[in-house]
Amino acid sequence: MKSNDSIGNYLIKRLLELGVNHVFGVPGDFVLGFNKLLEDSDIEFINTCDEQGAGFAADAYARLCGLGAVCVTYCVGGLKIANTTAQCFAEKSPVVVISGSPGINERIKNPLLHHKVREFDTQYKVFQEITVASTVLDNSDTAYLEIERVLMAALRYKRPVYIEIPRDVVYLKGNLDSIPSPSLNSSNPDALQEALEEAFNLINKAERPVILAGVELHRFKLQDTLLKLVEKTNLPVAETLLGKSVINEMHPNNLGIYEGAMGNELTRQYVEESDCLILLGTFLSDVNLGIFTAHLNPKSFIYITSEKASIHFHHYEDISLKDFLNGLLTANLNYRQIKLPSRPQLPREYTVKSGEKITIERLFERLNLFITNDMIVMADVGDALFAGADLLVHQKTRFLSPAYYASLGFAVPASLGAQMANAHIRPLVIVGDGAFQMTGMELSSIVRYGLNPIIIVLNNLGYGTERPMQDGKFNDILLWNYSQLPSIFNGGKGFDIRTEDELESALLEAQNYQEGFCLLDVHLDPQDSSLALKRLTKALSKNF
Amino acid sequence: MKSNDSIGNYLIKRLLELGVNHVFGVPGDFVLGFNKLLEDSDIEFINTCDEQGAGFAADAYARLCGLGAVCVTYCVGGLKIANTTAQCFAEKSPVVVISGSPGINERIKNPLLHHKVREFDTQYKVFQEITVASTVLDNSDTAYLEIERVLMAALRYKRPVYIEIPRDVVYLKGNLDSIPSPSLNSSNPDALQEALEEAFNLINKAERPVILAGVELHRFKLQDTLLKLVEKTNLPVAETLLGKSVINEMHPNNLGIYEGAMGNELTRQYVEESDCLILLGTFLSDVNLGIFTAHLNPKSFIYITSEKASIHFHHYEDISLKDFLNGLLTANLNYRQIKLPSRPQLPREYTVKSGEKITIERLFERLNLFITNDMIVMADVGDALFAGADLLVHQKTRFLSPAYYASLGFAVPASLGAQMANAHIRPLVIVGDGAFQMTGMELSSIVRYGLNPIIIVLNNLGYGTERPMQDGKFNDILLWNYSQLPSIFNGGKGFDIRTEDELESALLEAQNYQEGFCLLDVHLDPQDSSLALKRLTKALSKNF
Repeated sequence: MKSNDSIGNYLIKRLLELGVNHVFGVPGDFVLGFNKLLEDSDIEFINTCDEQGAGFAADAYARLCGLGAVCVTYCVGGLKIANTTAQCFAEKSPVVVISGSPGINERIKNPLLHHKVREFDTQYKVFQEITVASTVLDNSDTAYLEIERVLMAALRYKRPVYIEIPRDVVYLKGNLDSIPSPSLNSSNPDALQEALEEAFNLINKAERPVILAGVELHRFKLQDTLLKLVEKTNLPVAETLLGKSVINEMHPNNLGIYEGAMGNELTRQYVEESDCLILLGTFLSDVNLGIFTAHLNPKSFIYITSEKASIHFHHYEDISLKDFLNGLLTANLNYRQIKLPSRPQLPREYTVKSGEKITIERLFERLNLFITNDMIVMADVGDALFAGADLLVHQKTRFLSPAYYASLGFAVPASLGAQMANAHIRPLVIVGDGAFQMTGMELSSIVRYGLNPIIIVLNNLGYGTERPMQDGKFNDILLWNYSQLPSIFNGGKGFDIRTEDELESALLEAQNYQEGFCLLDVHLDPQDSSLALKRLTKALSKNF
Repeated sequence: MKSNDSIGNYLIKRLLELGVNHVFGVPGDFVLGFNKLLEDSDIEFINTCDEQGAGFAADAYARLCGLGAVCVTYCVGGLKIANTTAQCFAEKSPVVVISGSPGINERIKNPLLHHKVREFDTQYKVFQEITVASTVLDNSDTAYLEIERVLMAALRYKRPVYIEIPRDVVYLKGNLDSIPSPSLNSSNPDALQEALEEAFNLINKAERPVILAGVELHRFKLQDTLLKLVEKTNLPVAETLLGKSVINEMHPNNLGIYEGAMGNELTRQYVEESDCLILLGTFLSDVNLGIFTAHLNPKSFIYITSEKASIHFHHYEDISLKDFLNGLLTANLNYRQIKLPSRPQLPREYTVKSGEKITIERLFERLNLFITNDMIVMADVGDALFAGADLLVHQKTRFLSPAYYASLGFAVPASLGAQMANAHIRPLVIVGDGAFQMTGMELSSIVRYGLNPIIIVLNNLGYGTERPMQDGKFNDILLWNYSQLPSIFNGGKGFDIRTEDELESALLEAQNYQEGFCLLDVHLDPQDSSLALKRLTKALSKNF
């Protein structure tokens, strides 16, 4: 049965049903028809300066909303977001890449249409490598079925997907027959029961069980389930870098970040000496776990992700993370009286040392106290991330950073995505000067849409993370007068900061100025770095 | 036999031998070792703000030098230049993509290294789709052989190639045995002779033979051979957009650009009525030939490119473009007395209309007279290209634009590449505001390296090319105060231009100011467009 809706409108309707209210992108001739449909729909299209910015914004949006979307034109748009999509794949961020493309009919007549690389399916082939499902809607009979298949894969795996719409297909009617009812993953009940019983016994018998909470708890929105489990059992929770802020970091059972030798020593010791380590939705990656310095013992693992379930050295199939976590919650786990290690934290007091030059250490001490309940911390790659990991955030899922894939330039455009996802939060963006020079001009989009992030530029004249590994002129970058950028955009406020006093007054002004972005250009000594970074680069240079 | 050189140094030596004196890129931990070798070599490493800028700069460098190179880190660097590399593939620009990657040994121990997408070869697979040859140097015995194979493919096909160096391979010694002596393509002598005889007879018999000169004459540096042929035979030459400026555009035999209905009517008529059309190194693409409006008759074709040779409807194999052109030059072709159509040109006089608001038409009239012998015109996509096509450039290969693949944001970073390729030319960059907001901040790199392009920003508050096809808010962009950018970089000069007087004084000042870039922010009516663009968008909207 033919639908009343066009294929373009069907896709828009499904995105709205799945909670996507904003789509990020840059228009181009092969996608203009779909852009017009978007404009006439309840979805707001958010222009960015460059497609890269749209890709990062959609990534952040997906991390907060559960699904995001980016809409670009063929090849000259799509291939610009190969990298941001790869990051979504690596870090499990479900972004729908929508690309226009040449019409099916014009392809036949005109083999050398503009924007084409090698074959008409070159872009499709590239995205097959970096998405979990992909389709070209070249057949109106199967278009709805394909849209469902691909969208369900995004939700099931929390990874990016690719939908290409030839421009002459946008307005065609699809076929309503044979749309399957969406079936997300459910567990094999026998396998689930056996695994839960085994886990239950191991946890209850263990002397020092610890939860190591990972990124998937954010992605599958299982933060509250975890919190309930913790409150019922009093189990302690350590977080991976990607898992940071999965429960309120003020919570007494939150041990803070576990990141091998890079992180805090007491948390490391507590986790590594556990006889029952419950890894929930955790990737065992290098940066995430402190680059080669984690010493975890798989003999003590109960290891569950959306893709894999194993206990010690045996594996279960068809167990969903959500079902497993709910199973633990209803199981009769003991409530323990445990003594948690005292967690070293940034000081809860800060007194301005008047006239003192600002350092990284003091900057982060101050920022730690600046964070309020309505803020989300967005850390770019480098010391922004490593020092940022020590900041105490106040609510669940209020720390975003590409802690595994580590693509520079994420944070500024990501703050655009985050504030579209939740208008009630104010991003505190921490970004190095190198990363800022890649994508910082998306401040333009932030002005355009009236948003108000606070941007802290760690201005140390270069790629500070690389200097200790191998230094050379190639690590230098040009000094920009970042605080003058508001004059380019006719919006926002800039602050040039060299001392603790200047930092103090800028932060106070930023707190009160809600009408636009605030950019704090914090001049740092190029040799200055956080303790976490010093430990990390030492570990990295060994492998170099 | 083991070499004394490391594999990294061997690659550097070969690049130098092939004329690559500058490599563009952004460092990252997986490529730092190779960066250090570059710094210690005779190659100058040119930092850009973002990898995208490096990709475009290397593209322009390759178009002028015959080979270019870009050096980036694994995935977070490499995948950012998927688009610029795709453009090199589509427009035949031989850029060597050099990417660092995780060491072979560390891959075994650590399956989840940072920057990894899906598998360790994900990036390699992506680049296989958009390059003409690719390799991962994972074996020191075959590394030199692989480097040769891939570099020779870049020269043979004038398309991009991909070389990935795992970071633990950079310092290994390669094996000198079995490096093949480079054999570029040579023709099958029998096929060549037969084709030349056939072509010779057709040309001599024809009433109105015309050469349609394409991009490959630039890429294979055959501009002078063509000029000799023209002067020996008096044959007229029309150029495709990508072929523009293949011979001095002041030359009496140069008919100007043929681009179907989009171009000048007399040239179109002359070319389309030819009974013997000699297409040399020409792609028959849409934008290149005026989007669906070209009416060429294959029955009259002598069609030779580096990849294909055919006369009328039969094909030859193993004929090189260079051999064919040299063959025509030595053949006994008649010298013809021909009457060329008078070619409508932009007026050779311009008088400032004091107080008049500047329009696109008048701007290009003025720029046409501003161009000097030492300038290269670099046109971004949009009206910058379509109006730019009418400008008369003074020397061969002094017009660069992505006229087929059409990726916005090329021109500013490309001017960095062009001035590195030839320090004696001054780029005149024409760029729309939409394209400028994508990559314009590479002015930072231009300041860093002390270059002095003149940048004309066509400021019309949006994607002007798209408005006639389908308009909406998505075509709007934020107003930037472009002329204030020098205050961000501590370099260059900015000019805010609304009238003909302001344009005049800015151009004069730019001419005299050689120490840095000049940016002319030319405020245009959003509804204003060149005649060429009006014709093109009309043709495009029919297919929309």
